[in-house]
Amino acid sequence: MDAARARQDTLTKPPGSLGRLEEISIQVAGITGQARPVIKEKAVIICAGDHGVVAQGVSAYPQEVTPQMVYNFLNGGAAINVLARHVGARVVVVDAGVAADFEPQPGLVIKKIAYGTADLTQGPAMSRVQAVRAIEAGIEVAEDEIARGLSIVATGDMGIGNTTPSSAIVAAITGRPVAEVTGRGTGVNDEQLARKVAVIEKALAVNRPDPTDALDTLSKVGGFEIGAIAGVILGAAAHRIPVVIDGFISTAGALIANGLAPLARDTMIAAHASMEIGHKAALAHLGLVPCLDFNLRLGEGTGAALVLNLVEAACKILNEMATFESASVSEAV
Amino acid sequence: MDAARARQDTLTKPPGSLGRLEEISIQVAGITGQARPVIKEKAVIICAGDHGVVAQGVSAYPQEVTPQMVYNFLNGGAAINVLARHVGARVVVVDAGVAADFEPQPGLVIKKIAYGTADLTQGPAMSRVQAVRAIEAGIEVAEDEIARGLSIVATGDMGIGNTTPSSAIVAAITGRPVAEVTGRGTGVNDEQLARKVAVIEKALAVNRPDPTDALDTLSKVGGFEIGAIAGVILGAAAHRIPVVIDGFISTAGALIANGLAPLARDTMIAAHASMEIGHKAALAHLGLVPCLDFNLRLGEGTGAALVLNLVEAACKILNEMATFESASVSEAV
Repeated sequence: MDAARARQDTLTKPPGSLGRLEEISIQVAGITGQARPVIKEKAVIICAGDHGVVAQGVSAYPQEVTPQMVYNFLNGGAAINVLARHVGARVVVVDAGVAADFEPQPGLVIKKIAYGTADLTQGPAMSRVQAVRAIEAGIEVAEDEIARGLSIVATGDMGIGNTTPSSAIVAAITGRPVAEVTGRGTGVNDEQLARKVAVIEKALAVNRPDPTDALDTLSKVGGFEIGAIAGVILGAAAHRIPVVIDGFISTAGALIANGLAPLARDTMIAAHASMEIGHKAALAHLGLVPCLDFNLRLGEGTGAALVLNLVEAACKILNEMATFESASVSEAV
Repeated sequence: MDAARARQDTLTKPPGSLGRLEEISIQVAGITGQARPVIKEKAVIICAGDHGVVAQGVSAYPQEVTPQMVYNFLNGGAAINVLARHVGARVVVVDAGVAADFEPQPGLVIKKIAYGTADLTQGPAMSRVQAVRAIEAGIEVAEDEIARGLSIVATGDMGIGNTTPSSAIVAAITGRPVAEVTGRGTGVNDEQLARKVAVIEKALAVNRPDPTDALDTLSKVGGFEIGAIAGVILGAAAHRIPVVIDGFISTAGALIANGLAPLARDTMIAAHASMEIGHKAALAHLGLVPCLDFNLRLGEGTGAALVLNLVEAACKILNEMATFESASVSEAV
């Protein structure tokens, strides 16, 4: 990081004048251990799972949309496909626990823990063993992608109902009141939002997750795709690969990863400030500042894909710009 | 715009969930008159000029840096070259009034009005005829680029000392006190900043620009590259080409363009929130909301280049995503 910072100050611009781009390049130097990191292969890993809590009426969309959107990802028609193509990233879809069966096919990694979580208002969303398996699934996918060559990874999610466990995780870990960290997800109305808050309050009362034990929190009020996202982050961090954290659900996964291995936090780049009201508290807990504020609330890794491009730009600045000396430009007087 | 908005709501995502990306795509549809606009050719037009006011010690860098940076642009070593390559945009450099001679060469358009402006503390920076010629130069360059095929243009600037005339323009047009819209530029110290404020106050007192007459304001306290930027904006607007406005100097140009033809404002996309303290007031006057907040303060079109990529992404979302019907995805219940 010192070497990257020193080089930034030799480039033909006033020192510090590229602001966040300079900071990102220095962070990536630190993550990778390379003074002049180069971003080559990029991937968006979308973890998908279903949620028993949808029985409580917490989502605007029916559960069948989770597998329908998995097919949309595999067919290239979703928002994340458009944005991943735009930034030159491959898309990897992980079935971490969708309530439907898929035939094996290119682009899909089947790591199904179960056909959706249990309803977290009635008891734990999953067993502790399942929570470990979800995290391991994410680690395995990350390691497979790293073995294929990977400079940077973006996290993404798909799972109807998954803002509910995400809000539960954020409330449990940050200690904030449920109503302050629970938003409208894909678009519930006022009545549904009130029900969603009550559902999460009940889930926390029934399960009493231990906020100092990320595995306990994940198993009691989490989701399979959220565990898998935590695993992707941990796998990337262990291999010194930067991870762009998408929005609210991905940041819930980042809270789990951070709880298990706090050093993983240094490999995280927060993509954007989600419209979900709990996102700010989650980012603050992690000490992360989002790169974009675009009022996104889609998930899938859409914000993270855009930020992959900005991180690549930051590294190119560090690598490709002329120095005052090489370009014969006078320095400040 | 109505057609673009209607299409956004058929795409496989909750309505409005791509936030600013959806808004940008709808704006570009309105600018171009195409319900599904496609971004193909992109250009960053960097307008360069020098400023007689540097004699008053308002900049951290010597005036010779202006032509040195023009050569850096032509040789591909500056920040804007790196970022323009990254986003697939060509770079066009316009000598609107640099205090040095250049041999004709590819990538450089020579439209020199004079060898730098006059010192605006002693009288007008330029004559009214020169102000018209600077604007016309920008229009001509924009029209030449449009004739070559251009879907979108980004503005950029180079000119040692040019935050001084930019702050003067912003103070004159917005009516804000000089001290509230004058920042450190490339990095002056406290004493130099105080001098810079005094210089701008003197320039306004000596010249008394008419804030309702953009040409008067430009000629009395502006710069050749600022006039050329205004011209680029007007030329693009007249041909219904979206214009990404870079930072503080480009926004000063946008204030001049807006003063001459207020409808041009609708073709503007504000790239980023500059570190220059006067930028916010200038954007507010135009009613523009910046896309990025990256603490940039370099100019050259660097922030605008990054945003070219985001605008392209927004248009691809509108064009390439599957609809609920085509992807057989269930809609909200």
